[in-house]
Amino acid sequence: MARGRFISLEGGEGTGKSTLAAGLEAVLVQRGIGVERTREPGGTPGAEEIRKLLVEGAAERWQPMSEALLLYAARHDHVERRIKPELAAGRWVISDRFFDSTTAYQGAAGGIDRSTLDKLRRLTLGNFTPDLTLVLDLDPEFGLQRAGSRGGSEQRFEGKGLAFHQRLRKGFLDIAAAEPDRCATIDARQPQDRVLAAALSQIEQRLGWP
Amino acid sequence: MARGRFISLEGGEGTGKSTLAAGLEAVLVQRGIGVERTREPGGTPGAEEIRKLLVEGAAERWQPMSEALLLYAARHDHVERRIKPELAAGRWVISDRFFDSTTAYQGAAGGIDRSTLDKLRRLTLGNFTPDLTLVLDLDPEFGLQRAGSRGGSEQRFEGKGLAFHQRLRKGFLDIAAAEPDRCATIDARQPQDRVLAAALSQIEQRLGWP
Repeated sequence: MARGRFISLEGGEGTGKSTLAAGLEAVLVQRGIGVERTREPGGTPGAEEIRKLLVEGAAERWQPMSEALLLYAARHDHVERRIKPELAAGRWVISDRFFDSTTAYQGAAGGIDRSTLDKLRRLTLGNFTPDLTLVLDLDPEFGLQRAGSRGGSEQRFEGKGLAFHQRLRKGFLDIAAAEPDRCATIDARQPQDRVLAAALSQIEQRLGWP
Repeated sequence: MARGRFISLEGGEGTGKSTLAAGLEAVLVQRGIGVERTREPGGTPGAEEIRKLLVEGAAERWQPMSEALLLYAARHDHVERRIKPELAAGRWVISDRFFDSTTAYQGAAGGIDRSTLDKLRRLTLGNFTPDLTLVLDLDPEFGLQRAGSRGGSEQRFEGKGLAFHQRLRKGFLDIAAAEPDRCATIDARQPQDRVLAAALSQIEQRLGWP
């Protein structure tokens, strides 16, 4: 059985990652592909417990390096206990966020240098990476507005202020520019159906259909 | 003001670390030294929340590498927000467990190679180490019996079986042998007052009194 493909969706708050994930899942399932939709931080029972420590509470609850270590603890559990077994079983995995979020949030926006986060990534995951990463790009003034209207208790990162979210946006764009073979940027101000079409076009060009 | 000293107490389950910590605190306070007694995993509000994820639940709840990352997340918070500020304020810090426990539990007993854990330690803490580490050595058959009689919900590591705890004991002894300048081993089968006397003698010889 062919190994499945691993697609990560990245971008700041309110850029439409969950909507895109749902749209992609529907199209892939229609093509007869087994799809596992997941998210980070989270995706396994243990990682979802770690998520609660990260996304709730005061903005200054953790320093960026403590966050990065919590995120990689959750990611290790998620990759070893869910993502790798699903890929081995031939299913495609779509994750709402993966390691680029740590590089952007705790690195570009939070101030940890890139080489420290790269070392942490390699210690935790070795050479494991997504087959394709779609970066949804949006001015954070629009994104935060959209994210804020969702409400709920998971507001910790929304509380970090506009300057943080501007560094974050640049962080994601820099990652996409530095790794063009793995990453494609999509303009997230487009209507949802255009975002989905752009994503499907990237999947077809870069991964092909099974 | 002179920087305080940082003493970590290490060893398997039921080796008498908490009893020794209380005894040391009493003697140091009598000598007019400001003492901060703490423990790992834990020692700050955030790290205590991470502790719950680690010490409760089924023995196979986490893989060793996920545990090591959670432990270093908690340790980063503990060091940056409590231990370093206390030392800078001239207080002595006594911690029931520190990074050698990760090297022994997740490394020697859990199977992660030593160099991976050393890299994780340096990424998280740089060159920060205890000034003195006292390793309490005890046959795990005695230690587990003592720890088991405590009861409570924090039984996750006690549940890992005797072979695990034998690897653990050897792990601690190997650390002490490899770093004799920082570590001293104390025979934990002695009566409590003898263990305390041995610990005070090591402190006097190696750190001196202020």
